[in-house]
Amino acid sequence: MAVRELFPCVEWLRQYDRKMLISDTIAAVIVTIMLIPQSLAYAMLAGLPPEMGLYASILPLVAYAAFGTSRTLAVGPVAVVSLLTAAAAGKVAQQGSPEYMMAAIVLALLSGMMLLLMGVLRLGMLANFLAHPVIAGFITASGIIIAVSQVRHILGIEAHGENLFDLLVSLYQHLGDANISTMVVGVGAVAFLFWVRSGLAPLLVRTGLNPEAAGMAAKAGPVLLVIVTTLAAYTLDLKGQGVALVGAVPRGLPDLTIPTFSLELWGELAGSALLLSVIGFVESVSVGHTLAAKRRQRIAPNQELIGLGASNVASAISGGMPVTGGFSRSVVNFDAGAVTPAAGVFTAVGIALVALLLTPLLFFLPKATLAATIIVAVLSLVDLAILKRAWNYSLSDFLAVAITIGVTLILGVELGVLCGVLASIGMHLYKTAKPHIAVVGQVPGTEHFRNVNRHEVITDPRILSLRVDESLYFANANYLEDRVYELLAQRRELEHVILQCTAVNEIDMSALESLEAINTRLREAGIQLHLSEVKGPVMDLLKCTDFLEHLSGEVYLSHYQAVKALSGDGETC
Amino acid sequence: MAVRELFPCVEWLRQYDRKMLISDTIAAVIVTIMLIPQSLAYAMLAGLPPEMGLYASILPLVAYAAFGTSRTLAVGPVAVVSLLTAAAAGKVAQQGSPEYMMAAIVLALLSGMMLLLMGVLRLGMLANFLAHPVIAGFITASGIIIAVSQVRHILGIEAHGENLFDLLVSLYQHLGDANISTMVVGVGAVAFLFWVRSGLAPLLVRTGLNPEAAGMAAKAGPVLLVIVTTLAAYTLDLKGQGVALVGAVPRGLPDLTIPTFSLELWGELAGSALLLSVIGFVESVSVGHTLAAKRRQRIAPNQELIGLGASNVASAISGGMPVTGGFSRSVVNFDAGAVTPAAGVFTAVGIALVALLLTPLLFFLPKATLAATIIVAVLSLVDLAILKRAWNYSLSDFLAVAITIGVTLILGVELGVLCGVLASIGMHLYKTAKPHIAVVGQVPGTEHFRNVNRHEVITDPRILSLRVDESLYFANANYLEDRVYELLAQRRELEHVILQCTAVNEIDMSALESLEAINTRLREAGIQLHLSEVKGPVMDLLKCTDFLEHLSGEVYLSHYQAVKALSGDGETC
Repeated sequence: MAVRELFPCVEWLRQYDRKMLISDTIAAVIVTIMLIPQSLAYAMLAGLPPEMGLYASILPLVAYAAFGTSRTLAVGPVAVVSLLTAAAAGKVAQQGSPEYMMAAIVLALLSGMMLLLMGVLRLGMLANFLAHPVIAGFITASGIIIAVSQVRHILGIEAHGENLFDLLVSLYQHLGDANISTMVVGVGAVAFLFWVRSGLAPLLVRTGLNPEAAGMAAKAGPVLLVIVTTLAAYTLDLKGQGVALVGAVPRGLPDLTIPTFSLELWGELAGSALLLSVIGFVESVSVGHTLAAKRRQRIAPNQELIGLGASNVASAISGGMPVTGGFSRSVVNFDAGAVTPAAGVFTAVGIALVALLLTPLLFFLPKATLAATIIVAVLSLVDLAILKRAWNYSLSDFLAVAITIGVTLILGVELGVLCGVLASIGMHLYKTAKPHIAVVGQVPGTEHFRNVNRHEVITDPRILSLRVDESLYFANANYLEDRVYELLAQRRELEHVILQCTAVNEIDMSALESLEAINTRLREAGIQLHLSEVKGPVMDLLKCTDFLEHLSGEVYLSHYQAVKALSGDGETC
Repeated sequence: MAVRELFPCVEWLRQYDRKMLISDTIAAVIVTIMLIPQSLAYAMLAGLPPEMGLYASILPLVAYAAFGTSRTLAVGPVAVVSLLTAAAAGKVAQQGSPEYMMAAIVLALLSGMMLLLMGVLRLGMLANFLAHPVIAGFITASGIIIAVSQVRHILGIEAHGENLFDLLVSLYQHLGDANISTMVVGVGAVAFLFWVRSGLAPLLVRTGLNPEAAGMAAKAGPVLLVIVTTLAAYTLDLKGQGVALVGAVPRGLPDLTIPTFSLELWGELAGSALLLSVIGFVESVSVGHTLAAKRRQRIAPNQELIGLGASNVASAISGGMPVTGGFSRSVVNFDAGAVTPAAGVFTAVGIALVALLLTPLLFFLPKATLAATIIVAVLSLVDLAILKRAWNYSLSDFLAVAITIGVTLILGVELGVLCGVLASIGMHLYKTAKPHIAVVGQVPGTEHFRNVNRHEVITDPRILSLRVDESLYFANANYLEDRVYELLAQRRELEHVILQCTAVNEIDMSALESLEAINTRLREAGIQLHLSEVKGPVMDLLKCTDFLEHLSGEVYLSHYQAVKALSGDGETC
C-alpha cells in the first residue's frame, strides 16, 4: 500500500497494454512537437541558454511519471514559473553569466526540496491560501508582463525591466534601434500564430480533415514556424541583416550537475524558491484536477507535491530550470489521447532525441520566432474580465484581484503574489473581526428565529436574542463585548440575553474571557446570560473550563426551547 | 459634539468642583511619590539618563488629561515599553551615546504620530489581533527578561544581552566582578521591597491604621527605600566602595526638543515604533477598560489612540521617552481616589517640582535601589500559570502562549510579539481551513437537526444533510469539495445533498467557484444540490451571481422544510 502511494506508477504499470502504448505514443509525439519550441522559448524568457529548456524537459518528465498522480499532466518549463525564475535569478546575478545559470539550477533544487518536504509533511493545503482571485490576477498580470517583455525580440532591440513601467520605458527609449528584418520575422510570426489559432483548423476542416485531427494539426503550427523561419534565416543570411539567432546549442544529453551549495546563495533564493514552488504547485494542481475530473479520476494533492518536487530535483541535477505542470501542454496531451504518465516518458525520449540529434539545426532559429510563440501563448492567459466579475461579486474579492494585478505590474511578480495573498488574508480577518451580530425573533408558527430587520418575527421585550454570525476568537472578542453593551443600553425591561451560537464554530481563550466579562457585567445589571445551540466541539471546550459554573443562565439545545422556557418564566414553567 | 469628542476633558472640566479637586490632589500626591523612583528606574531600564524618565512624566500626563477618555489612567514610562525602547534604540546606536538618546526620542515621536494616525483612521480594532494568550505570554516573558537584566545592578557588574540566554551567559561570565557593597544594598533593597509588599501593610494595620490607608502607605515603600539608600550612599561614601550611583541629573524643566528628522533613522525605527505603539496601546486600553468598568464608565478605544499619541508626541518634544498607561500606577491612582484626569495634571506638577528642586539629591541614589524597584515591580507581571491554563483550554491557545514566551526569551522581545501574533493568526486560519463538516439528522419530534455522531437522529438514505461549520472562503473551498466527494462515494442511493448554511457567514468568490464545481459534479451523477438556512447577507451576494440559476436544487428557508419537501418527493408533495 505504502509503495503504491509513493509510486502511483505501480498502479497503471500493472495494467499497461498495447492499446495504451499506442495512445500514449501518439500523444507523446504531438506533445514533443509542441514542447520543442516551448522549452527553447521559456528558457529564453527565463534568461537562460536554450539547452536548459530542453534539459528541463527530459528527466523531470520521467520523475513525474514515477511519482505523480495525474495521468495526463505534462510537466516542463512554463511561462509563469520561467518569469519567476528570471526575477529571482536576476536578483543574485547578471543575466548571461554562469552565476545566473547556477542560480536557476539552485532555484529548481530548492524548490524541488521544498515541494518534497511539503509533500512529506502533507502541507498541500497551504496552497489553498492562494485565493482564486489572487491566482487569476497574478496569471493575468504575469501574462501582460511576459508579453511586453518579449516585444524587444520582435523589434530586435534591448529592453529590460522587472515591472511593466520599466519595461515600457526601456522599450520606448530603444525604439529607434529597431531592426527591420527582425520586425518582419517577428510580426510575421505573431500574425501567423494568431492565424493558426483561429484560421488554420477551420481551413483544414474545409479540406476534408475531421475537426479533432484539424485541431491537433494546428498545434504543430509553432513547429512549422520554427522550421520555416530557421530555413529563412539560413538561406537569406538573416544574421547578416541583424536578426538575433539562437546560435550554438550544445549537442548531447545533459551531464549530471551538482548545484552549488552556498548558504548565502541558498538563503538569498529561499524566499523566491518557496514562492515559485507554491505558484507552480497551484497551477499544476488546478490543471490536474480539471483533467482528472473529466475522466472521473482523482489526483492526490500531497502526492502531487512529491511528484513535482522530484521533477524539480531531477531538473536541477540534469542542468535544467524550474518546472511544473503546464496548462496548454497538458490539455493537448489529454486531447491527443494520453492515458497514462508513460506518455510523459515517451515525450522525454522525444526531447532527448532532439538534444542528441537536432540541436545543430537550432543555430539558425531566430529569437523573434520564439518570442512570438511566447506572446501568443501568454496572451491567452490574460483575462482582465476577472476584474469586472470580482467587482460584481464583492469588494474584497475585487480588491484582491486589483491589488494583485496592480502590484504585479508596478512592483514585480514576487511582491505581486505576496501582496495579493496578504491582502486576501487581511481582508478575511478584517471581516471576521467585525462579525455580523443579528437581533433575532421567532418566525410565527415555526421553531425558527431570523433577523428582526429582514423578517416578520415575534420578540419579547424581556428577552434579547442575539445570533452571532462568526466564530468567536481574539480578533472579534472585544467587538462582541462592545456590541452587547451597546444593545443593552437601549433596552430597559431586559431580563435575559440569549446568544444563539449556531454560527459559532470556535470559542478561543480570548473570546472566553470576553464571555466571562459579559456574564459578570450582565449579572451586575440583573440580567441573565444564556447560550443556545452551542455546537458539540465548542461545548466540549467550555466543559473543560469553569465558565459554565459562572454562567448566570443556562445552555439550551435549541433557541426555541430557550425562549419558550424564559418567556414562560413568571408563569408556569 | 466634535469638540467634546476630541477633548473629552471638556466634559469633566465643566462639572469640576472642590470635592473633586481634593480627591484628585490626594491621589496625585501618592502617585507622584510612586512615580519618582519608577520614572528614574524605567529610564535606566531603557538605557537612558534618569532625567528622561522625569521629563516623560510631565508633559505627557497633561496631554493625556486633555485627550484621553479614561478618568483614572496614569500615563508615564512603563516596564515593557521601556524594554522595547531599549531593544529598538540598541539596534541603531550605542547605549550612552547622544544618538541612542535621540533614537528614544524619535521612537516616542514616531510612536505618537502612528497612534494619532491610527486614531484618526479609527484603527483601534487592529489591537484586537493581539490575542489574550499572546499578550499574557509576552508580558510574562518580558517580566523575566527585565528582572534578569537588572540583576547586574544588584551585583554591581556589567552584563548585557537582548535575550535571556545572552543575559545569563553574560551574568555568569562577569560573576567574579561582583561588588560586595553593591550586593548588600541591592539584595537588601529587594528583600525590603518584598517585605513592604507582603509584610508592611498588615503591620500598619496592627498598629491601628485602617487597611486602605495601610495599603496606600505601603506604596510609599520604594520612596522610603530611595531616601534611606541615598542617605546611606552619602554618609558611608558607598561610591568609594564601588557602588554605582545615579550621578548628576540636570536641574530644571525640560527644554523644547526638536527630534532629528532623518529618513534613514525613521525608516530603521518605524517597525519598532509600530510594535511599541500597539503593545503600549493594548496594555493601556486593557487597564483603562478594567478601571472604567469598576465605576460604570466607558473608554473610547479610538479616542484613547489620540490620547496616547498626543502623550508620546508631548514626550518627544520635551526630551522624554515613549510612554503609555501603566497598570500598577493606574490602580494606585484609582484606589487613591482620583476622579478625573486632573489628578494626572497635578502629578505632572509634582514631577515638575521634583525636576526643578530635588534633582541634586538624586546624585547619591544607588542604581541598585532602582534595579530593586524594577525587579519587584516586574516579577508581579510574571504569570507562568498562563501556560497551564492555556494547555487545559486548547492546543492552539497553548501554542500561542508557548511560542510567544519561548521566542521572546530566546530571540528577543520584538520577534517574540511578532511570532506570537503570526502564530495565533496562522493557527486560526489553519483551523478555518479545515472546517468541521457534520452529517446531520432530525432530532425526533422537533424541527432541529444535529450531528449524527453525537445525537439520536433520523436520517433518510436518499438525502445527505451536511452542516458546514465555517464561513466558506478561499482557504477552505477546496477542502469542502474534497469532503463532499468523499461522502458521496460511500452513499449509493443518494438523490439529494442539502448544505445547511447556518454557520456560513460568508461565501467568497473562490468558495462560489467550488460550489459551482460541486453542483456540476453532483448533477452529472444525477444528484441535486440544495441549500438551507442561508443567511440574509450571504443570500444577497448569491443573488448577484448566476449561481442560483445553475443550482440543480432549491434554497430552503429552514433545513426542516428542505427535508420535508425532499423526503416526500416520490409521494404526495
